Amino acid sequence: MDKLNRLNMIQGHILGNLSFPNDTSLSDYVQRGPSFNKTALHDFYYEIGLEYYKDLRPIFEQCPSLRHTNIFKLSKADKRKLIIEQLTEMKPKLNFDRKSHADNSLRGFVFGRLLFSFDMAFCVRLGVHSTLYIDSILSLGTEKHIPMLDKAFSLQEIGCFAMTELGHGSNVSGIATTATFIPETREFEINTPNSLATKWWIGAAGQTAVKSTVFAQLYVGGKNKGVHAFVVDIREKDTHNVKNGIIIGDCGGKFELDGIDNGFIIFKNYRVPYDSLLDGISQIDDKGHFISQIAKKEKRLGRMLSSLIRGRTSVTSASEANLKNALTIGIRWAAIRKQFGPPGKPEVPILDYQLTRNRLLPHLANLFAINAACEITFLQYDPIKNLMTADPECNEGVEFHAVLSAFKVLTSDWCFAGIHECRKICGGIGYSSHSRLGELLAKHDVNMTWEGDNYVLLQQTSAFIVKQIQKSLGGKKVSLKTLQMIETDFATVKKQKPCKDWLEIPELVKSFKILFNFILHKAMVKLQDNAGKAGTLFDAWNLSQPALQNLGRIFGIIIISERLVVKTESLKGKCAVLYDLISKMTKLFLVDKMLAYVPEMLANEYFNRNHLNELEGMFTGLCGELGESSARIIDAIAEEDFMFGSCIGRKDGQAYQHLANEIESQPDCYQAAPWIDVLKKLITP
Amino acid sequence: MDKLNRLNMIQGHILGNLSFPNDTSLSDYVQRGPSFNKTALHDFYYEIGLEYYKDLRPIFEQCPSLRHTNIFKLSKADKRKLIIEQLTEMKPKLNFDRKSHADNSLRGFVFGRLLFSFDMAFCVRLGVHSTLYIDSILSLGTEKHIPMLDKAFSLQEIGCFAMTELGHGSNVSGIATTATFIPETREFEINTPNSLATKWWIGAAGQTAVKSTVFAQLYVGGKNKGVHAFVVDIREKDTHNVKNGIIIGDCGGKFELDGIDNGFIIFKNYRVPYDSLLDGISQIDDKGHFISQIAKKEKRLGRMLSSLIRGRTSVTSASEANLKNALTIGIRWAAIRKQFGPPGKPEVPILDYQLTRNRLLPHLANLFAINAACEITFLQYDPIKNLMTADPECNEGVEFHAVLSAFKVLTSDWCFAGIHECRKICGGIGYSSHSRLGELLAKHDVNMTWEGDNYVLLQQTSAFIVKQIQKSLGGKKVSLKTLQMIETDFATVKKQKPCKDWLEIPELVKSFKILFNFILHKAMVKLQDNAGKAGTLFDAWNLSQPALQNLGRIFGIIIISERLVVKTESLKGKCAVLYDLISKMTKLFLVDKMLAYVPEMLANEYFNRNHLNELEGMFTGLCGELGESSARIIDAIAEEDFMFGSCIGRKDGQAYQHLANEIESQPDCYQAAPWIDVLKKLITP
Repeated sequence: MDKLNRLNMIQGHILGNLSFPNDTSLSDYVQRGPSFNKTALHDFYYEIGLEYYKDLRPIFEQCPSLRHTNIFKLSKADKRKLIIEQLTEMKPKLNFDRKSHADNSLRGFVFGRLLFSFDMAFCVRLGVHSTLYIDSILSLGTEKHIPMLDKAFSLQEIGCFAMTELGHGSNVSGIATTATFIPETREFEINTPNSLATKWWIGAAGQTAVKSTVFAQLYVGGKNKGVHAFVVDIREKDTHNVKNGIIIGDCGGKFELDGIDNGFIIFKNYRVPYDSLLDGISQIDDKGHFISQIAKKEKRLGRMLSSLIRGRTSVTSASEANLKNALTIGIRWAAIRKQFGPPGKPEVPILDYQLTRNRLLPHLANLFAINAACEITFLQYDPIKNLMTADPECNEGVEFHAVLSAFKVLTSDWCFAGIHECRKICGGIGYSSHSRLGELLAKHDVNMTWEGDNYVLLQQTSAFIVKQIQKSLGGKKVSLKTLQMIETDFATVKKQKPCKDWLEIPELVKSFKILFNFILHKAMVKLQDNAGKAGTLFDAWNLSQPALQNLGRIFGIIIISERLVVKTESLKGKCAVLYDLISKMTKLFLVDKMLAYVPEMLANEYFNRNHLNELEGMFTGLCGELGESSARIIDAIAEEDFMFGSCIGRKDGQAYQHLANEIESQPDCYQAAPWIDVLKKLITP
Repeated sequence: MDKLNRLNMIQGHILGNLSFPNDTSLSDYVQRGPSFNKTALHDFYYEIGLEYYKDLRPIFEQCPSLRHTNIFKLSKADKRKLIIEQLTEMKPKLNFDRKSHADNSLRGFVFGRLLFSFDMAFCVRLGVHSTLYIDSILSLGTEKHIPMLDKAFSLQEIGCFAMTELGHGSNVSGIATTATFIPETREFEINTPNSLATKWWIGAAGQTAVKSTVFAQLYVGGKNKGVHAFVVDIREKDTHNVKNGIIIGDCGGKFELDGIDNGFIIFKNYRVPYDSLLDGISQIDDKGHFISQIAKKEKRLGRMLSSLIRGRTSVTSASEANLKNALTIGIRWAAIRKQFGPPGKPEVPILDYQLTRNRLLPHLANLFAINAACEITFLQYDPIKNLMTADPECNEGVEFHAVLSAFKVLTSDWCFAGIHECRKICGGIGYSSHSRLGELLAKHDVNMTWEGDNYVLLQQTSAFIVKQIQKSLGGKKVSLKTLQMIETDFATVKKQKPCKDWLEIPELVKSFKILFNFILHKAMVKLQDNAGKAGTLFDAWNLSQPALQNLGRIFGIIIISERLVVKTESLKGKCAVLYDLISKMTKLFLVDKMLAYVPEMLANEYFNRNHLNELEGMFTGLCGELGESSARIIDAIAEEDFMFGSCIGRKDGQAYQHLANEIESQPDCYQAAPWIDVLKKLITP
């Protein structure tokens, strides 16, 4: 027991009515299972950008305002104030500038993951400015916008990103805000033509930002030129008053994340100078003629939206952080919490139960998979962004978009399910705000909606795949790396059978590729059938969604699996125990995901009854074995206590004492109801 | 458009910056699909206790304090105060007395469902007193406790129910609070021997209750006599001060339900008179000898816990109410919200998309199933309670416990999934507090944990089934109605094949019974295998949970299906359109549930590939057809707007205008940040 912990204990004894003897349950559990070096596992897990984790973590520790005690009790205004205070404290340590941002995305990605690990609201509050606002100028603006960027990097001017409208979220091309070019003054007049066109949910617009990137339908000479982006002032720099010609209001309470000041913006004949146009793609010449380097409206929009890529990757990072925090809490609590036991014997930790392990371990395997998805993103982002800068329509860019979309969907879905399982594992205490699991669940929830609704995004991934298969059926070779697994001849696919070693990792990945082709074939047949029935491609596409959504999911799973295989193999010959452990984790991921698709495997006669039994047996066996090591694994990869802030998930394992200390330190813990008079009225006969 | 609506519209135009033309999207959608009489569907859905719905609904309307506007913004203290005010307003209309409570449970069940429909916190706040506290005295006390009951029914004395401890939730027999009999004074001394034994999460203990039923280990003459229940004073009636010898504190913030004052209770040598013992089962005679009508400790505990039955049924009712409210919001919003559309045509309501229908309609089918589960409970409660009063160990009672446990688990799980799908369907607006979907999700979440953790309860159902099959294998006939489907000869089961009409309702139910036997067989084999491997029954049981949990689930699904079939058939010959509609709903429920168990059906060669295809086709077809009618169905069964209080789910379909009115009427909507000075510090270079 370290000094701080001992101090906490003593404090508990002095202050409160609740005190507990030192609890060794968690430290005992951390010793269970095959012994491995925890630092080695840490360095393996945080492999990509390891040096940045080591650099950046101390920043968080050095900012005393970055602590969680009872922040869930703050009012909306106080949550927002706290975030601004935290940002102010962190600012001198940020080293945030244009050059480092452009040169090396990895440090930024690592910093983002750490920010998410601390608090999603805090991270998004900063991310709206540093990712959405800044990236929109970087990718859509030109030389003349650089001074604006410098003020943004130094946090002198905080910006927001006004794309979404009350009436349009997913369908960006349908936004209705207009920007009309006024040739006489070379200005644009920005208007909100009706209330549905009100910019809505704009993070940081509510009370903070002085600048905004605004997406609007550009009109030149009375003609619509499609969606374009403008950077405009929305508040006076000195007084912070909202500019004339703009109305800004607060979007109200949310399920969570009230620390982000989401606002709505209405423009009324708001005039902005020509240079407001982010003119990297389109310009208006001196004669008032519209010029664009991309001829088609839809392609221009695609190019605009590509500036959102970094935002989308942030959901994968958030999922890693949120799920890791939830599992840290859930697994540690399950090692401490005892309930029932063999007749006549002491109660056992609930983590001893096979059922608990079956419930928790697939989510731990998902965490390693989400981590792998982050790594793929971090490794590929810079090279592909460079290719896209040279050629916005390059194959690699299109492919990357499809991959990131699938990752965003899979990881946010997995994370939600995992947090909820941890909430339930922690029972009533999991429902307490002091566990922070409810807060994590509610904060994470929006990840399934923003940065592209999950069901809509999955359609973009499947559209990408279908387009490639159509090319391939047309005789062209599929050159993209991620789609080499496509087999257009279904008879060949049908002939495949699992080999003797089908439960080994490489064979499981192979089976997933066969599954991909089963689903692909099914989706193509559905598309064809429905095209015949429905008459329009729009309807055929919508009717075929059940198969198409699965296609996108399996595509993502395969890409993640391949990274997991590479990572796992990198341990071979280094540390036998760790290699064995991580192999099991990778296998559990594959087995768990395969179980969801068993119907297709059985229906296509690829699997038989024995395969199902073996798969289920393998699942339970792996959960059992990895469950034994789970507290030690968490110990190796969890963030520090102050980062996730749950009193029941702390490293020292004194969950009950920390919970009691927090509960008893509430000012109203032992107070009578302030509404006692109302109560007396009720009980008066 | 009715008058009130028109008034709202005008108000919107006058007050705010946001105004919208009248929106006919929802009223148009309500006209779609085959036309049926909405009142007929309403009366069909609320069939059991229809007269009570009609009697009780006006009570809610007549209490002006029962409204939802922005209550999510209140502090913990103000939420609690509001509930007490609401109770005070409702009290004169309650007609709550001992006779009606005992004679007719149906009115109480209906009232509970309506209370849940209004607000779970409000309902539970009252339910802890009226169900847990009162029922514990009614079922465990004797004649002498009647005066106490009368004060409880008149709300003069509010009581709570102290069973759970910080260290023991699921394992009630492990609670550690002691009640030691003092022969000299014929008193009991109640003690909390250590902090883990602190009574925890006790609803209404925090600040309200003056009485509590306390569960404690009874010690007589130094010997433990097992868990017994005592009714004790916890606060002074006049001053409302906590009694000497007791410490009460507040359990702190929760994921939701802060309107319930959950408290913790510590007893320090707290003396209570002999009559505190609820002595229906056990007594201590004048010589200080312990006497009990039930010899075994465990059986006594079982009898105690049976007083919890009504509480468990309340989770099924809460699930009906919460899911119905969520679907009311989700389906209406999906009918109003337009996004994307065929090329060159106007955008279409998202409810038009097959994918939206596939996502929403299974939950609507679940709602009808949950309603059926409520009906089974309501119809069987009184007769079975009477049988149990005569013979606490009667077969019907044991069976009812198994059925209610399965219902509790299934319905709370379905409801959570359904609310979350509605949240996602409503996108960003679903994440707004003003939609109330986040609040519904967070409030409902605890239903999976309290009144018996779902994973623990399912074990009780499967233990019941396994015990019966063991009797049956021992040659005894299974007499219980719910288990007539057991087929001990697996060869007979294996021979069955789906008939030509296998997708008709009766055949689907039959297939479910075959599935039940597949799983039963699998579970028994697992149990046997694991018993060999594990050595102890405790371990074998835990290792076999994956199959056993499914067994309990399918058992519940079959019982619900049979009620659905009876209900559906009752429409035959009455109204062809409604009969057809409800038949499809029942079929969708069966098809959707069957899809989850396709692996077993394929692996046992009961289904083949064609069956899977037909099942999937049927699923999509039914979702499509029922989706067309879904807005009309909701219109028939939804509660009034003021009951669920979501501005985007109102009957008039003016979602955007109501949302805008709520947002703009926030006092801080157009205010500058009160923390502007902190912000200025941040942006200073």
